[in-house]
Amino acid sequence: MTTQNDKAKQFQSLHVPGQPLVLFNAWDAGSARAVAEAGARAIATGSWSVAAANGFADGEKLPFALALDNLRRIVGAVALPVTIDLESGYGDAPEAVAATVAAALEAGAVGCNLEDSFPSDGSLRDPRDQAARLVTARRTADKAGVAMYLNARTDVFFQKPADAHDMAMVDDALQRARAYADAGASGLFVPGVVADHLIARLAEASPLPVNIMVMPGVPNRARLAELGVVRISHGPGPYRGAMQWLTEAARAAMA
Amino acid sequence: MTTQNDKAKQFQSLHVPGQPLVLFNAWDAGSARAVAEAGARAIATGSWSVAAANGFADGEKLPFALALDNLRRIVGAVALPVTIDLESGYGDAPEAVAATVAAALEAGAVGCNLEDSFPSDGSLRDPRDQAARLVTARRTADKAGVAMYLNARTDVFFQKPADAHDMAMVDDALQRARAYADAGASGLFVPGVVADHLIARLAEASPLPVNIMVMPGVPNRARLAELGVVRISHGPGPYRGAMQWLTEAARAAMA
Repeated sequence: MTTQNDKAKQFQSLHVPGQPLVLFNAWDAGSARAVAEAGARAIATGSWSVAAANGFADGEKLPFALALDNLRRIVGAVALPVTIDLESGYGDAPEAVAATVAAALEAGAVGCNLEDSFPSDGSLRDPRDQAARLVTARRTADKAGVAMYLNARTDVFFQKPADAHDMAMVDDALQRARAYADAGASGLFVPGVVADHLIARLAEASPLPVNIMVMPGVPNRARLAELGVVRISHGPGPYRGAMQWLTEAARAAMA
Repeated sequence: MTTQNDKAKQFQSLHVPGQPLVLFNAWDAGSARAVAEAGARAIATGSWSVAAANGFADGEKLPFALALDNLRRIVGAVALPVTIDLESGYGDAPEAVAATVAAALEAGAVGCNLEDSFPSDGSLRDPRDQAARLVTARRTADKAGVAMYLNARTDVFFQKPADAHDMAMVDDALQRARAYADAGASGLFVPGVVADHLIARLAEASPLPVNIMVMPGVPNRARLAELGVVRISHGPGPYRGAMQWLTEAARAAMA
């Protein structure tokens, strides 16, 4: 029998720098099955997509109970390891983050994303505060006996538009990465970074394996592999694409 | 302010024989918005799609509480009238159907589908039993003060494969249509019928306006309009198409 911890270890083993794990983010049990059908090795939720599918804006506007029920249904619908986007942990205090992570593990997740920006305005938390929150997340997983993949997301690159991204932002992200690694994170997720040379420097200098999000301008998968990236996420892209397909098909049906 | 009954009347007015209302069935708030974006005049749920999106099989396997919460979110997400597929009413007794319809109205629906087959095996209910169930559905809507569009679905054509469909089945459907009309139904939904001459006879002889489901072999929209059809549903097609898009896109992202 595969235990949750077996699944967690299996998920962990899919993270090989230079052979990036591709996560085509799902939002409900049906979309998770559709992604699994394509041969995916793991399922990741995207909070933006889950919120939109339920009629909510992103930024912890979706009630957490609904996110959890949805997670439970996804875990029940696919045999693959499932990692959940927990946004900023649904609460500021480390104890609140611990409760959020405990509930996600209880619902069957073997990995999670925790971001370092405030849901209210997207500004960055103090890295020490975020590290303290990651410490309790790791402790919660240890207590549950699950080798959870704790993906520490930094929103450094969402603070400025892409054409203003520079090496100083990479340095900020790397400084955070060191604090998050010490706190027990498994990986560093840096959505928003696009330029090849910035990704190269991140992947080279980060103490944590680096996860990049596909966006316009991001190098292709082969190049990200060359740069040493460990994981490629698609964020809201799959949901947006499916809904665009739906709108176009509906328009054609009514034309 | 638009009341629920105003919306119900607006939905009713969209049913014009010969100018069929096209319903491109949605399954959650996000898909409802995507269909609305295409210029749809109303939103209809499809039970197969709602069940699949949540990891369930069709046939009232989806907990009704979940279907209701989903309906509430759809109604909140779009300004359009919303009609819900209530399958076989979640219960055999007329009182159970009344409770189901009352809950759907309370959640904001202005129309519903009620089918005359048993969820357990798809066999047909006695038409008198189904009529009694429709009577209580109508009475429930009257009590709530909502001019609900009560779409009486008959599953006559799901009892045999399409190549075995004949005029005797049309006669069965028409006999049921008369009983359902007397019971207070607004329309007759006949999924499964494909052949042009059978649809023509149904539309011509039915005391209730006829709703056809798009399936391989069903005449196109212009022809269904000529035949006098009032409404065209897409059933699980939109969901299946969106998920097929997703599987193909995921495959391409991982290739």
